[in-house]
Amino acid sequence: MVQTVAVIGAGPSGLTSVKACLDEGMVPTCFESSNDVGGLWKFKEVSEPNRASIYRSLTINTSKEMMCFSDFPIPADYPNYMHHSKILKYFRMYADHFKLLQHIHFQTSVKRVTQRPDFSRTGQWEVVTETRDGQEERHVFDAVICCSGHYTYPNLPLKDFPGIDTFEGKYLHSWDYKGPEDMYGKRVVVIGIGNSGGDIAVECSRVAEQVYMSTRRGAWVIRQVSDNGLPVDMKYNTRFVHILFQLLPMNFFNWFGEKKLNAMYDHTMYALKPKHRLFSQIPVINDDLPLKILSGSVIIKPNVKEICGSSVVFDDGSIVEKVDTIVFATGYNYDFPYLPKNTMYKSGHRVGLYKHVFPPNLEHPTLAIVGFIHALGAIMPQAEIQARWVTRVFRGLKKLPSNQALIKAVEKDTKDIDNNYIVSKLTPLQVDFVSYMDNIAGEVGVRPSLLWLFFTDYPLFKRVLWGPVTAYQYRIMGPGKWDGARRAIFTQFDRMYQPLKTRQLEDEESSIAGRLVKLSLTIMAGGAAVYYIQTRNPDTIPALLSNLRPQTV
Amino acid sequence: MVQTVAVIGAGPSGLTSVKACLDEGMVPTCFESSNDVGGLWKFKEVSEPNRASIYRSLTINTSKEMMCFSDFPIPADYPNYMHHSKILKYFRMYADHFKLLQHIHFQTSVKRVTQRPDFSRTGQWEVVTETRDGQEERHVFDAVICCSGHYTYPNLPLKDFPGIDTFEGKYLHSWDYKGPEDMYGKRVVVIGIGNSGGDIAVECSRVAEQVYMSTRRGAWVIRQVSDNGLPVDMKYNTRFVHILFQLLPMNFFNWFGEKKLNAMYDHTMYALKPKHRLFSQIPVINDDLPLKILSGSVIIKPNVKEICGSSVVFDDGSIVEKVDTIVFATGYNYDFPYLPKNTMYKSGHRVGLYKHVFPPNLEHPTLAIVGFIHALGAIMPQAEIQARWVTRVFRGLKKLPSNQALIKAVEKDTKDIDNNYIVSKLTPLQVDFVSYMDNIAGEVGVRPSLLWLFFTDYPLFKRVLWGPVTAYQYRIMGPGKWDGARRAIFTQFDRMYQPLKTRQLEDEESSIAGRLVKLSLTIMAGGAAVYYIQTRNPDTIPALLSNLRPQTV
Repeated sequence: MVQTVAVIGAGPSGLTSVKACLDEGMVPTCFESSNDVGGLWKFKEVSEPNRASIYRSLTINTSKEMMCFSDFPIPADYPNYMHHSKILKYFRMYADHFKLLQHIHFQTSVKRVTQRPDFSRTGQWEVVTETRDGQEERHVFDAVICCSGHYTYPNLPLKDFPGIDTFEGKYLHSWDYKGPEDMYGKRVVVIGIGNSGGDIAVECSRVAEQVYMSTRRGAWVIRQVSDNGLPVDMKYNTRFVHILFQLLPMNFFNWFGEKKLNAMYDHTMYALKPKHRLFSQIPVINDDLPLKILSGSVIIKPNVKEICGSSVVFDDGSIVEKVDTIVFATGYNYDFPYLPKNTMYKSGHRVGLYKHVFPPNLEHPTLAIVGFIHALGAIMPQAEIQARWVTRVFRGLKKLPSNQALIKAVEKDTKDIDNNYIVSKLTPLQVDFVSYMDNIAGEVGVRPSLLWLFFTDYPLFKRVLWGPVTAYQYRIMGPGKWDGARRAIFTQFDRMYQPLKTRQLEDEESSIAGRLVKLSLTIMAGGAAVYYIQTRNPDTIPALLSNLRPQTV
Repeated sequence: MVQTVAVIGAGPSGLTSVKACLDEGMVPTCFESSNDVGGLWKFKEVSEPNRASIYRSLTINTSKEMMCFSDFPIPADYPNYMHHSKILKYFRMYADHFKLLQHIHFQTSVKRVTQRPDFSRTGQWEVVTETRDGQEERHVFDAVICCSGHYTYPNLPLKDFPGIDTFEGKYLHSWDYKGPEDMYGKRVVVIGIGNSGGDIAVECSRVAEQVYMSTRRGAWVIRQVSDNGLPVDMKYNTRFVHILFQLLPMNFFNWFGEKKLNAMYDHTMYALKPKHRLFSQIPVINDDLPLKILSGSVIIKPNVKEICGSSVVFDDGSIVEKVDTIVFATGYNYDFPYLPKNTMYKSGHRVGLYKHVFPPNLEHPTLAIVGFIHALGAIMPQAEIQARWVTRVFRGLKKLPSNQALIKAVEKDTKDIDNNYIVSKLTPLQVDFVSYMDNIAGEVGVRPSLLWLFFTDYPLFKRVLWGPVTAYQYRIMGPGKWDGARRAIFTQFDRMYQPLKTRQLEDEESSIAGRLVKLSLTIMAGGAAVYYIQTRNPDTIPALLSNLRPQTV
């Protein structure tokens, strides 16, 4: 049985993995190559090779209630979208609170992880580490969790940009971008319309002479400030919406969502509209971009065809001259250089991992990857639920299917991802946030049962059904149950409001009449919806019931 | 009869006044203290005393079609919300095109303007100017137009901030603000939630440790990117909306508008909500502020009570410590130091000017103030229509009423402003954009007659009724008619779209079906609205007809 576990990396995934090991009574040893926890979220003024890198002004695009760990809510007075400095503070609090630091070896990189000669029997691994002063050390562990992240190796596809060698200006990868200081009065081309590309284009446009943003495919762009000003993930990442997604055809949601986005600003008019439908790819999150486009400080351009001296030529033949700087916001390659090649099962163009966690081709499930995932939702709670599952598997409390079954499942996932999503070949890690959380929670035995809640705790049921799928929901019942979970769910909107209460408003209107009207409207709308669903889609009730049934642990 | 006119200032108001003089066959002489046209819009790295000042990143908050002069559309490829550098370019084009430069004396300030001894008979003025090298000169003019602006004298009400003398950090007026360079890592308090305060808070929040924005009253905050991504003024500053405003009670629009704004983000939750209703004050325009509030980088605070050392104490007793910088975005005082006191008629706490243009107490209407106005709309077209009126009056083609009647009208305006608006004592210049444009256009004889258009040019009628009230509408008919006006109105949305067409989209859906549905819905909605208005408000038809009747020129 697994006792000792190596955890590679002390970013959020590593921290929660260490905690999960402790919770299951194992002995974790975490190796962190830098001198601090936080991984990606530890800002450095100069990017360091083989480490993730962020820019000075970075603010996370998932809200605090949706990104926090399930048994450690973010302080009530923290803002909803946190600057990286606050996120790092939160991770330090988490590490302090659960006494994780004593298990972390800082300034220690992992050079190699190999199966021990007796792996078939023991499932053990040899881990070779190197400290800052070059001292190598060998360790033996019963199991290994890799949390080295996937924003570490910049993807700089220079060969796709003929003539880049003739470019007279400066080019850099978004990984190297720290702030707009070098962009004053410059003409800048940002390549790529991911979240980084959008952020960098917007920020530079405040000081640059002109920013162009080149995109091959276009993108759907959403706002963090959603209806009534709620954080968009708290508004839409609800279990109710999730159930609707299972009941109604995806085309309906594409139509509805695109209509809503176009009502904010027409994606065709703004030259953003992609060929793919809204839910075929995780949308870009950027509140500031539309005004920058409308005020012309960011100009959307098609794909770059070639570069000649200081000119950039685009696919439509248009040319931008006197370009000073090109920023490649072209994403990241993933790599686990310390792992033996044979542990990485290739499936299509992705690393095939069973439920994005376990290599499917090992004799013993004593190696896991945590936090190697991408959804319209924060990585932290996903990494946490993965870690909880992994440690249950390590302890033998959960069994994995046969290798053959694992491989079959991996191949099916690969096919589903290819069918459902327009996924970059670089990071084919896309999942649906709630489905994935529920799925892994089912493995752990902590997926909340709506039916059980309905009968035993109706107020909680309501919040679990209608409210955002915060991670607390996976601490209500089952292994790892946390007594504070119910309270955390009841107070999640209080914590959302709290940091905004900075100027007291007098004369709050008495809104009893308003509430009555609202209530009646809600009841009517609810009734109409139920009637509509029932008449249009008669297999709704069975599907709904299947969702309500208590899970088998 | 007036032949020679002194125009003071070569900002947008001065330029269009010079042009209006030329159009009426008079001889303008424009005195400009700086070395360039553009006034406010001429950016300077260091603010210069007695001149307006803007910051480096300033982008105008009115869209190009709504801010341009009536017979000189902004180039189609210019963006909708222009950076100050582009606005300056446009003014230079305007000056070049209409050959205005030869009438401008640069580096020449106006020291004094006084009535000539024979004013009673001639209406003439003596203008004393001073060149850069200190040389004074006296000139005699038949009339004077003052276009020296009203963002020239910063209002720094230090006495309202007890303890400011103990403040250990640095404080400045927004007039002195150029960019966020000095704010890196600082704790900043911005006082005032006008457009400048909002812009500065948002910009500094990208680099500051923390920005607080203190507001006494709160504000309604609107976005420039309006429904479907249209510029907000093109969407809502339509003649149809204007007519609705005359027909339905203001409470309806307040309710509707506030509901719409709160649907974007709840102004109560965001601590912004003011005590006054939406249309009691020109709202703040800021697209970026909501996310900055939600991400906590801008924290809204109440009024400042006092300052102690490096701490700022607010009215609610809360204290912000270690403040490095206070920015007073507390607006401007207006002053016309070169005018004799007796020409400035005081009405309440405002300078009483007949229709915001003519001092009401002069024997001859040979002095006018142009561009001294504030509406939810650009100053340029308002200044232009004022200048057209002024020059018609100077030429004797339009007569003003008696001084007594002028004074009566001024006093009524003062009362109306006090009743309808929460106006700062500093600049009680608020008018409703379309009403004011129409009113002055009526004086000039160029207010478009809907009834006449309905029968003579239905396609144009539709655009004038449903479309935005662009200044071209005041060149369709009457004195100063411009043959290009009709075309300019037909192409105004093309010019809006043009700068956004930077990435060609394939597969534009054929939307005939969609259009049919839209058409039917529009007809139904229109019918319902007419029915509703007619049943609820039987005096609608007379009111509407009165709006439609051809004006008396």
